[in-house]
Amino acid sequence: MKIGFIQFHPEFGKKEKNVEKAVGIIRDIDADLIVLPELFNSGYLFTSAEEVENISEDVPSGYTTQSLLHVAKDTDTFIVAGLAEKAEGARYNSAVLLGPEGFVGLYRKAHLFKDEVKWFEKGDTGFNVHDIGLARIGMMICFDWIFPEAARTLALKGADIICHPSNLMLPFCQKAMITRSLENGVFSLTCNRVGVEERGGERLEFTGLSQIVDPKGNVLALASEDEEGTQVVEIDPMEARDKTVGINKIFQERRTDLYELS
Amino acid sequence: MKIGFIQFHPEFGKKEKNVEKAVGIIRDIDADLIVLPELFNSGYLFTSAEEVENISEDVPSGYTTQSLLHVAKDTDTFIVAGLAEKAEGARYNSAVLLGPEGFVGLYRKAHLFKDEVKWFEKGDTGFNVHDIGLARIGMMICFDWIFPEAARTLALKGADIICHPSNLMLPFCQKAMITRSLENGVFSLTCNRVGVEERGGERLEFTGLSQIVDPKGNVLALASEDEEGTQVVEIDPMEARDKTVGINKIFQERRTDLYELS
Repeated sequence: MKIGFIQFHPEFGKKEKNVEKAVGIIRDIDADLIVLPELFNSGYLFTSAEEVENISEDVPSGYTTQSLLHVAKDTDTFIVAGLAEKAEGARYNSAVLLGPEGFVGLYRKAHLFKDEVKWFEKGDTGFNVHDIGLARIGMMICFDWIFPEAARTLALKGADIICHPSNLMLPFCQKAMITRSLENGVFSLTCNRVGVEERGGERLEFTGLSQIVDPKGNVLALASEDEEGTQVVEIDPMEARDKTVGINKIFQERRTDLYELS
Repeated sequence: MKIGFIQFHPEFGKKEKNVEKAVGIIRDIDADLIVLPELFNSGYLFTSAEEVENISEDVPSGYTTQSLLHVAKDTDTFIVAGLAEKAEGARYNSAVLLGPEGFVGLYRKAHLFKDEVKWFEKGDTGFNVHDIGLARIGMMICFDWIFPEAARTLALKGADIICHPSNLMLPFCQKAMITRSLENGVFSLTCNRVGVEERGGERLEFTGLSQIVDPKGNVLALASEDEEGTQVVEIDPMEARDKTVGINKIFQERRTDLYELS
């Protein structure tokens, strides 16, 4: 199975341009599963609710999802993409999982970072796993990484590959995702963006370093800090079904009798 | 508050020698809390149940605990030390927390690594936090690091400092402990050992790199890969009461409504 990421620099507010760019790259590469960044079609640094309202869209009927569904079908590719979702009067920082045969799943970001609470509702979908035949896919978005329960829930539900669209600014996530892969025996695929956004007196620099990690903690692909780039690697997702570290069975040996996690 | 580790090379089976060496170092340094490695008094590579039976001891009445209690009182130091415990016919890979006024707490390793299941029962104490006045202390041992629930349980119960006696052979733990500190907003103090043990046809090399990490993921102290060494740093344990990352409140914002962790 070939899985990859498209680390790129969305232009703020230019939805059609960003979507066309991503679609073009997907047409050019050969992959079974491609992950795009968080909010890949809109950019990140909103300055008003109106901006979010204008760019967010229904899933799966909106422009972005429909464009990606089209290329997913044409190229026989599964796609995970982060976008601003509009649903029943609320807006969510969401990720969609799309495939050659149509819409597969939706994840609404559970743990919002900083000012995102001004623009989005906290996600209500929970952490669900979607079997696409080739593998079982889980989704989480950016800051979800700091809560070990997000990846843990996905792994306990059977995810082989955690797809992790991101707009990272802090330097800790990439190393933490190695731990997430190891502790859960899963592949993780973090697709970050690059570039700088300056709007409304604020300046954000995104840190790239998109990466793919295998269940033993090996980094299979690592992108640049500041340049766009697409990488695809061949993996055997069944490696994520083997929950061992040496002879230890890290899922069977969990001491749920001793954990207190409420 | 001054906290530190004694990374050293125990000689297998030479309990008195190992204990005297640790006691001597503790007498020479100025610290409020000192952590010793896992099984610091016995060495690691047992080849028979008889060996474990012979070297393990009652807590707190055994030689090791009594020796450490003596130096804890003399030097006004709290000590966390890993040792083989004998209790009611069972043996445990345990850690004790001792202070100037006596015995404080016991932790029995919950997640046993590899052949340890041949020598020890799985721990039954759970993950408890002990308030020593200066700070609230939690203990976990070595391979517990790979189970995020161990550190999480300690942090949710209020630990400021996670003391982590270890005998590490794999290269992943130290970076994972940075994630453990960050995701839980706690200090972590991993005291590893160094040296090689060759017994019964097996050879184990321990990887050193004992470290102290603050709640923001900064490494405050890092020992050598292969040499003994003691390091002490000054910390403010109250930094662990501030569970924020930027403006995010990482404990309050946990989405326990969405986690499925059984």
